[in-house]
Amino acid sequence: MPTDRIKVPELLSKVMDAKSAAAFIQDQMVVGASGFTKAGDSKAVLPALADRAKEESIKITLMTGASLGHDTDGKLASAGALKKRMPFQVDRVLRQKINEGEVLFIDQHLSEAAELLHNKNLPSVDIAVIEAAGIERDGSLIPTTSVGNSATFAALAKKLIIEINTAVPTSIFGIHDIYQAEDYPHRNVIPIVAAENKIGRRTIPCDPSKIVAIVFTDIKDSPADIAEPDEKTTAIAKHILNFFENEVKLGHLTERLLPIQAGIGKVANAVLSGFKHSNFYDLTMFSEVLQDSTFDLIDAGKLSVASASSITVSEACYKRIFENLQNYRDKIVLRPQNISNTPGLIRRLGIIAINTAIEVDIYGNVNSTHISGTNIMNGIGGSGDFARNAYLSIFVTQAASKNNSISHILPMVSHVDHTEHDVDIIVTDIGLADLRGLAPRERAQVIINNCVHPDYREQLQSYFDRAKERGGHTPHLLEEAFSWHLNLKNKGTMKLD
Amino acid sequence: MPTDRIKVPELLSKVMDAKSAAAFIQDQMVVGASGFTKAGDSKAVLPALADRAKEESIKITLMTGASLGHDTDGKLASAGALKKRMPFQVDRVLRQKINEGEVLFIDQHLSEAAELLHNKNLPSVDIAVIEAAGIERDGSLIPTTSVGNSATFAALAKKLIIEINTAVPTSIFGIHDIYQAEDYPHRNVIPIVAAENKIGRRTIPCDPSKIVAIVFTDIKDSPADIAEPDEKTTAIAKHILNFFENEVKLGHLTERLLPIQAGIGKVANAVLSGFKHSNFYDLTMFSEVLQDSTFDLIDAGKLSVASASSITVSEACYKRIFENLQNYRDKIVLRPQNISNTPGLIRRLGIIAINTAIEVDIYGNVNSTHISGTNIMNGIGGSGDFARNAYLSIFVTQAASKNNSISHILPMVSHVDHTEHDVDIIVTDIGLADLRGLAPRERAQVIINNCVHPDYREQLQSYFDRAKERGGHTPHLLEEAFSWHLNLKNKGTMKLD
Repeated sequence: MPTDRIKVPELLSKVMDAKSAAAFIQDQMVVGASGFTKAGDSKAVLPALADRAKEESIKITLMTGASLGHDTDGKLASAGALKKRMPFQVDRVLRQKINEGEVLFIDQHLSEAAELLHNKNLPSVDIAVIEAAGIERDGSLIPTTSVGNSATFAALAKKLIIEINTAVPTSIFGIHDIYQAEDYPHRNVIPIVAAENKIGRRTIPCDPSKIVAIVFTDIKDSPADIAEPDEKTTAIAKHILNFFENEVKLGHLTERLLPIQAGIGKVANAVLSGFKHSNFYDLTMFSEVLQDSTFDLIDAGKLSVASASSITVSEACYKRIFENLQNYRDKIVLRPQNISNTPGLIRRLGIIAINTAIEVDIYGNVNSTHISGTNIMNGIGGSGDFARNAYLSIFVTQAASKNNSISHILPMVSHVDHTEHDVDIIVTDIGLADLRGLAPRERAQVIINNCVHPDYREQLQSYFDRAKERGGHTPHLLEEAFSWHLNLKNKGTMKLD
Repeated sequence: MPTDRIKVPELLSKVMDAKSAAAFIQDQMVVGASGFTKAGDSKAVLPALADRAKEESIKITLMTGASLGHDTDGKLASAGALKKRMPFQVDRVLRQKINEGEVLFIDQHLSEAAELLHNKNLPSVDIAVIEAAGIERDGSLIPTTSVGNSATFAALAKKLIIEINTAVPTSIFGIHDIYQAEDYPHRNVIPIVAAENKIGRRTIPCDPSKIVAIVFTDIKDSPADIAEPDEKTTAIAKHILNFFENEVKLGHLTERLLPIQAGIGKVANAVLSGFKHSNFYDLTMFSEVLQDSTFDLIDAGKLSVASASSITVSEACYKRIFENLQNYRDKIVLRPQNISNTPGLIRRLGIIAINTAIEVDIYGNVNSTHISGTNIMNGIGGSGDFARNAYLSIFVTQAASKNNSISHILPMVSHVDHTEHDVDIIVTDIGLADLRGLAPRERAQVIINNCVHPDYREQLQSYFDRAKERGGHTPHLLEEAFSWHLNLKNKGTMKLD
């Protein structure tokens, strides 16, 4: 037990096993937990709670930063331990329980969860479980691979359980920038004017008298799934890079671009990889999560600084980072998610935001969360924080999938996460629609011309033409608006004939 | 001609009549014009342009702050002078032309129009028409009753036409705070931390060599329609005030509340009037528009400071303000709309936002703009800027209208302007639904219980119950989702039996 990671001697008596620590979590409690895009999450106490919930009836409200790794959400959901869950999740089992109505899920803008707690617009946190690399002399916590909402939980929770993860070297100290806005009505400016600015403390302030348990673990974060770019993601990435090159030619952007935010996944990785062999240089990121491609770009000398709330990478990249931390230390910053995602900073810095859509309609409204308007996939995450306030808001999706039985561009989205006001550019493997300065009827024609899979082009044009005949600023045929979704349900395809 | 309002002697030669000035506006030009909530708009040049367009084919893209007064939008639209219009309008004739597809309308968050111009995400402005109370020695412009996008137009337009309105006393000098953010990538913080902060200049910077024409007018702003509170708006206001009182009791707010934003209209006026005889005091506003009720509250000693982008009041109130400007001078501030509505300030100050919905669905999604998903009414205005970033986001609507043939709470909104993520409280004349901390299925039941008109309660409960049987995080029956709208169209009522 490397007790040198605990610099407050009185806290040594709080060290215990995960099961004993989990016993502090009681039925009906509101529990905060570290973890953001599967990084820096509880690896011992929440799984121990899931085990206990198999034997004993216990239901909690669980708030995290974002998604948890290691199937922890699934284990908790299977054991019936979750009454309510917020603000994000990506777990297959939990998703099913949510869609069955067994777990109540609150899908929140990632910048807002901490705000809602500080503003008392959510119930107060009874206890929080926070992963840390160590506890400093002043009781403050050295975060690990994510910050998420941990600073808020440490400040507001009545009791704290700390998981000290020895798989994370203490040399991680210093890559975090922990800053929290003041409470209303005396909130000051957040003085960040560039992605690399550090304005806060390096550790999370923490009153050691609130710590009721300390658990040691040595379990690494769940590794990111790294999928090689395929034909479609490569095509999407190429359309985006061509678009950027053209914006540079027009004098709208320089080859430094502006700070980039990229959602998780294959397309983001493909776009970032595309920069490696481009003329762009001195790039910056102001994003939620740093992925393998971020570190590849740093290594390639293309990316100067990357700010986010977490590091979620493959096993190989994880090893590379921690063995060469001196190479990355001055180039990366991890922040609380209410700073990484705060609307004011996104607008101030002029972010280029690239996020993924499940479906897009002819007017550019985006559904990022729900299958057929009803079943949730993951959640809105930070896409709304970025899309609304970005310098450029780009959404990507494949044009069609499942043997082309599903078109991802259709008459009306079955659920709206991002309204047409917040969407500048739509990109599919077929092409790119630049919607800036276009009215709805113009947007529709550009999307149909540039983005729709050829199998659906005529069908979509027909909907739009017939809707226009009836008139309207945003022509729709309400009786047909969801006919594609209904046809998929009834006949297994969105193709209407 | 009070030429003492022009302090730059060389500009005296630019004085001309409106028709001559309008001749600088050419076919296909992009034209900027002052005006926000009908205040501070062009009263001579744009109407002269409309007259000319009756004789001559001319089509322009017209950008304003927000709505124009004096039927100017209608005159321009009738004359066929508008090719494209943004970012907001409230005119009956223009609305019809938009819905017929004759005028292309871009409905924008009011904070964004200036951003899009600065970022070159919109075509550049050829010429702008700006109402002013006078021109200072340095060429800068004293704004009148609104600021809107005038500072952006003055900075970016190639040519300028100034309308000097002598109906506005020059004593208005000093109530404006003109500040513009730097261009990317070197944008700094906007250092406003309280509604009363003034951080900029008192006049709009302007290069006098760009001024090609000066026109004198003495026409007052279109007066605001002041409707007395009726039974429904009084009920809505009462629910909101009760809610605030309860938040104070719970210790979430003090009797100073937090800065208030209130959309235009009867409900906002009724809520603000309600404060007059309440225990609330030292209130502040950080809003878009100052209405009669604002000045009533100042006079009643309840409101300490009010910040907005315009003053839109009745004729009597207009007179009262300008005859007693010394009473209001240190209590009101008019700002550019990209400052009054900027997301970062709204979150920093912790605004309580009260906006109007056309319809609301059981999950709390709000349609503020479209009738039956197709025909636009006015536009999103600043509601999105405020709702997304507010400390509390409140939406109000009557429960039912037109002899109860229309329910404003229904299964699925036919157009989404504000997603459930951005809506905390729904209020109708029936009651208030507090949606904070609730998952979609909980939100639906609270809305059905508290807000729906009794004529529709059973029908809505039936939809929700049957949707729940099929499951889902956000249960919907896509084949029935718009049945209420379709029934209204086919049978003249949303009542299904």
